Amino acid sequence: MTDTSQQFASDNYSGICPEAWEAMAQANQGHQRAYGDDEWTARAADHFRHLFDTDCDVFFAFNGTAANSLALSALCQSYHSVICSETAHVETDECGAPEFFSNGSKLLTAHTEQGKLTPASIREIALKRKDIHYPKPRVVTLTQATEVGTVYRPEEIQAISQTCDELGLNLHMDGARFSNACAFLGCSPAELTWKAGVDVLCFGGTKNGMAVGEAILFFNRDLAEDFDYRCKQAGQLASKMRYLSAPWVGLLQNDAWMRYATHANRCAQLLADLVKDVPGVSLMFPVEANGVFLQMSEPALAALTARGWRFYTFIGAGGARFMCSWDTEEARVRELAAAIREVMAG
Amino acid sequence: MTDTSQQFASDNYSGICPEAWEAMAQANQGHQRAYGDDEWTARAADHFRHLFDTDCDVFFAFNGTAANSLALSALCQSYHSVICSETAHVETDECGAPEFFSNGSKLLTAHTEQGKLTPASIREIALKRKDIHYPKPRVVTLTQATEVGTVYRPEEIQAISQTCDELGLNLHMDGARFSNACAFLGCSPAELTWKAGVDVLCFGGTKNGMAVGEAILFFNRDLAEDFDYRCKQAGQLASKMRYLSAPWVGLLQNDAWMRYATHANRCAQLLADLVKDVPGVSLMFPVEANGVFLQMSEPALAALTARGWRFYTFIGAGGARFMCSWDTEEARVRELAAAIREVMAG
Amino acid sequence: MTDTSQQFASDNYSGICPEAWEAMAQANQGHQRAYGDDEWTARAADHFRHLFDTDCDVFFAFNGTAANSLALSALCQSYHSVICSETAHVETDECGAPEFFSNGSKLLTAHTEQGKLTPASIREIALKRKDIHYPKPRVVTLTQATEVGTVYRPEEIQAISQTCDELGLNLHMDGARFSNACAFLGCSPAELTWKAGVDVLCFGGTKNGMAVGEAILFFNRDLAEDFDYRCKQAGQLASKMRYLSAPWVGLLQNDAWMRYATHANRCAQLLADLVKDVPGVSLMFPVEANGVFLQMSEPALAALTARGWRFYTFIGAGGARFMCSWDTEEARVRELAAAIREVMAG
Amino acid sequence: MTDTSQQFASDNYSGICPEAWEAMAQANQGHQRAYGDDEWTARAADHFRHLFDTDCDVFFAFNGTAANSLALSALCQSYHSVICSETAHVETDECGAPEFFSNGSKLLTAHTEQGKLTPASIREIALKRKDIHYPKPRVVTLTQATEVGTVYRPEEIQAISQTCDELGLNLHMDGARFSNACAFLGCSPAELTWKAGVDVLCFGGTKNGMAVGEAILFFNRDLAEDFDYRCKQAGQLASKMRYLSAPWVGLLQNDAWMRYATHANRCAQLLADLVKDVPGVSLMFPVEANGVFLQMSEPALAALTARGWRFYTFIGAGGARFMCSWDTEEARVRELAAAIREVMAG
Repeated sequence: MTDTSQQFASDNYSGICPEAWEAMAQANQGHQRAYGDDEWTARAADHFRHLFDTDCDVFFAFNGTAANSLALSALCQSYHSVICSETAHVETDECGAPEFFSNGSKLLTAHTEQGKLTPASIREIALKRKDIHYPKPRVVTLTQATEVGTVYRPEEIQAISQTCDELGLNLHMDGARFSNACAFLGCSPAELTWKAGVDVLCFGGTKNGMAVGEAILFFNRDLAEDFDYRCKQAGQLASKMRYLSAPWVGLLQNDAWMRYATHANRCAQLLADLVKDVPGVSLMFPVEANGVFLQMSEPALAALTARGWRFYTFIGAGGARFMCSWDTEEARVRELAAAIREVMAG
Repeated sequence: MTDTSQQFASDNYSGICPEAWEAMAQANQGHQRAYGDDEWTARAADHFRHLFDTDCDVFFAFNGTAANSLALSALCQSYHSVICSETAHVETDECGAPEFFSNGSKLLTAHTEQGKLTPASIREIALKRKDIHYPKPRVVTLTQATEVGTVYRPEEIQAISQTCDELGLNLHMDGARFSNACAFLGCSPAELTWKAGVDVLCFGGTKNGMAVGEAILFFNRDLAEDFDYRCKQAGQLASKMRYLSAPWVGLLQNDAWMRYATHANRCAQLLADLVKDVPGVSLMFPVEANGVFLQMSEPALAALTARGWRFYTFIGAGGARFMCSWDTEEARVRELAAAIREVMAG
Repeated sequence: MTDTSQQFASDNYSGICPEAWEAMAQANQGHQRAYGDDEWTARAADHFRHLFDTDCDVFFAFNGTAANSLALSALCQSYHSVICSETAHVETDECGAPEFFSNGSKLLTAHTEQGKLTPASIREIALKRKDIHYPKPRVVTLTQATEVGTVYRPEEIQAISQTCDELGLNLHMDGARFSNACAFLGCSPAELTWKAGVDVLCFGGTKNGMAVGEAILFFNRDLAEDFDYRCKQAGQLASKMRYLSAPWVGLLQNDAWMRYATHANRCAQLLADLVKDVPGVSLMFPVEANGVFLQMSEPALAALTARGWRFYTFIGAGGARFMCSWDTEEARVRELAAAIREVMAG
Repeated sequence: MTDTSQQFASDNYSGICPEAWEAMAQANQGHQRAYGDDEWTARAADHFRHLFDTDCDVFFAFNGTAANSLALSALCQSYHSVICSETAHVETDECGAPEFFSNGSKLLTAHTEQGKLTPASIREIALKRKDIHYPKPRVVTLTQATEVGTVYRPEEIQAISQTCDELGLNLHMDGARFSNACAFLGCSPAELTWKAGVDVLCFGGTKNGMAVGEAILFFNRDLAEDFDYRCKQAGQLASKMRYLSAPWVGLLQNDAWMRYATHANRCAQLLADLVKDVPGVSLMFPVEANGVFLQMSEPALAALTARGWRFYTFIGAGGARFMCSWDTEEARVRELAAAIREVMAG
């Protein structure tokens, strides 16, 4: 069932974009060396180095669960802890994957402002305990864009990075929607990562037009020592790697990644604009990426569902999340907005 | 580089077969629910249940490393051990993945005959130690077809299964090349698995025309309890699951899986036939699946390499492995055979 | 330094009680079989079975960190979760040990009333999420007596156990101060454990007069399958086991465990009685076991410290914990009370 | 049962020696700070630094299983491997503990000469595979004295250490019977460890007169970073640490450790001397520490057992291990020797 009313449920309900598909088709010619020793993987890695304007180490994992968990486990030991936001995906939606991959590293949740960690909230958690009976903080993980659709500015990341330096913490970025953050800010990928002090970025492709294959970029290359072995042991080394890397070539080579992210963001903005004056509807967070979070009454949400619209509800009663993706149709955004207006009027 | 001389290096150097590709293309329409809650995944699971003629539990993992390691970790605890052959892929080529996923289960290697475990070799290892200072044997894992290209007969599997029952061991089958075994024996998949006492099969697709997406089939469904959580936590739950499952629909629905395996086996047989009378060349193992293992002199192997042919050498001096795959060209087999004849004559 | 002013800092600052010491001395005769195959270990296990009036499985671990972590890991898999109180020792003071031993099981903290979980608070956490992206709740762990010095009544445990049954959860009890709970309630150990539905108890000896050697009692013996292997693999099988088990014989055989717990409780009660009318001092929790938690001003606490008294502060500003142990001297309790009265007057 | 005929079964069947007992008795005065922050632990650590003539980092664990496993896990990551001898205790008798603590590091067994690794055997294993599909060798572990009662000379350790340096491997020593090696060689502890290139030593006390409490000495102090957290998380931090450390003070302060090891060695030598001319009995290994390994016929061993003597048999048919300990009585050695002579004559 390819129900268009599901278009706003999640950005991972979408398919593969034409550029990624075409690259896969090209890659699907004849035999290629396995395990990343192929030309497509080399090309994709080079595209990343060019895009980020630095000689980073590049790896590929099958999905975001693994990419983030492997990266975090490379940044700390089992008796260390990872500071994340209360709403961080690694904390709320990974079924304990970071703890599994790291063999027990504890996640410590810090308060956020509009879904974003701050130097103060990090400091509070990092300094709360200094004794051996509590896992020693060693990593901070940010999600860019955040799980509530907000975006860290370069100076916010820099401030956090500075705090990390003071406290001896590594800085990891979960970039499942990194493209959307770049599109919103108009910043270069470098400005949002290594130039701001990020050690490792997990750059998500799945939510922006790929099937599988998140990229893990180590700007701090010391931390990447033997990371290829880590990937292999953890079941994240693809034999036919070209099918993970070629789509990245497709996405990166002509800026498709940016066009799609911009499109998704614009759709989200459109939706927000269209409903902002609807009585009884309020935006829960500023719309900075591709998600719109609306506070609406339970009956209104039920009515929307009854009309066939699909979306996730979360953060207490009355909230609904609408996600736009690379292939969201503007006409459907307008239909959804109209439906919201109608159920609120009803 | 799509060098045809690499065709015999590994069966995972090959690409995606047309049937799998076409199914992915069809699956790539519009939005679909994520995490396996889509129609393609349901269809693929049903195809497996039909093919195996039983109501088994079906899961998908990204690759064989993970599929086998997750299955094994579901069959034992960390203080248990897994009996495998000395040449088992899980022992020799997974960088400790089974130990990682299980948090420490030890692999105990047993002697083999032509790459195959026997009831006697299993019994020897299982009964060697009965004290608490040695991890308690809990699982036997077979590879079908084996790493040296031989195939377990149904009665061999039954005999092993009986031994497992006597000793309280679960029986796992690594079926990276299960298709090739079926093709060789002309047996039904059921006869080679649950009817012979296999608890869990990891059915490989990657080496038979897919990009990613090994299937894990639990015939003993009690052992599958909460296995979906295990996959998720271990980074093996694809969000866009349809791209792992649809190719299986393509492979299974018109017996493409069997045609391709038969083709690969036939190419291997052809190669063996063409070189068997070449002086100085000898077959190391009977050719029952898609691999040919030749004993040749080091200079001959070097000469072959110098002509551009690619292959792996293993098991002491002089051996070379040539793998055929779903797309191996018969003409190339003949060229390779001719080249072998020439270098041996040279 | 054997500073008596440290007497109230922790109940693990105390030494070995005479009965435990004497039993160790007796055990220290000649050679004995290792790894628990000795007569003292058999005797200790029998004492437990007699004391609890049931044929439970008994194991010994070196400390509470390991005893609780091993027990929890036997009750769930890595992708399951453990419901505990916000103040549970396993959550706040074990440096991620439960996560380490279980290879990633997440602890989910529930609200408490006076340090105690309730059926409602457990239900809230257990039912919050039912999807695969969140670790499935599988265990509830209670601390008896709690970390804030309160004690679960048998009917409270029964109610929790009933909730566990409804929700498919195993029930574990961290009994680091189980003796103190028994002493306070005048209940039999059986009433507070298996008769109330507890599956596994970790019975602490260290805080009641032993050096090392917590006991793990499985009332639900199915859950103890191969637990001896688990202990061995995790570094918790003592070769000279008699030195862990003999002290238990000493503690249990003439009810020394109960006398000491009663003494410690009485000292705590005395302290509470002596300071309850001091202006500016208030009890934070009812004194039911061997701990007294006082709300006092920061300057008062500082003054107390300046006089050489040692104690831990926790739960926000102003709180101080004073622990009594098997060897606390009543005269010292009175001195401490007088000192508190003085600093508050000062 | 304190059966003297068990005296030769294992050196961990023995009790606590007077010096260790007396130190425990002294330590058992009043209250002491917990978790190693006490005076006895400080004193013990200083004794080690003095004995080894270097400023090493000293930790204590409850037993050898944990001490060695924790040390190894500090020297490598889960995707690394540990090279050990075929007969290494960590490989054969720890129920997968090293794999558990390290979350999957594989042990690779190398050939030995009289139970000892050599530069050549290490090199063979370390260089066998250099690809990502095999866990990367990162540590060598030696047992000193070995499991078959032989002893590495300083120059042998130096040669191994040199090989380790060349290959990028850390060097760990399992010193469960380190005392016996020192006694045999007449070398200083320093000569056998850091001066010969050992990074970490696990110095065993249990087999030489203690109850619990193996010491872990990091000569390469960089490798000890946050090792205290590792011990805590893994359930190896004793709250009443003084009972682990005080016995070491007792053993070390007047060279009791050396006297006892010398005694045990001498008893073993005596046994070997007394039976060496018995027809049908042959020494399997040179007697260099406190164990004697005799090749005898099965019926002779059975006859010995029938007379009540206890010992372990291993390494194929006909072998028996007799261990001497700190409290072995010379008279009993003579009785055993006479019994052996009799059963062989019988």
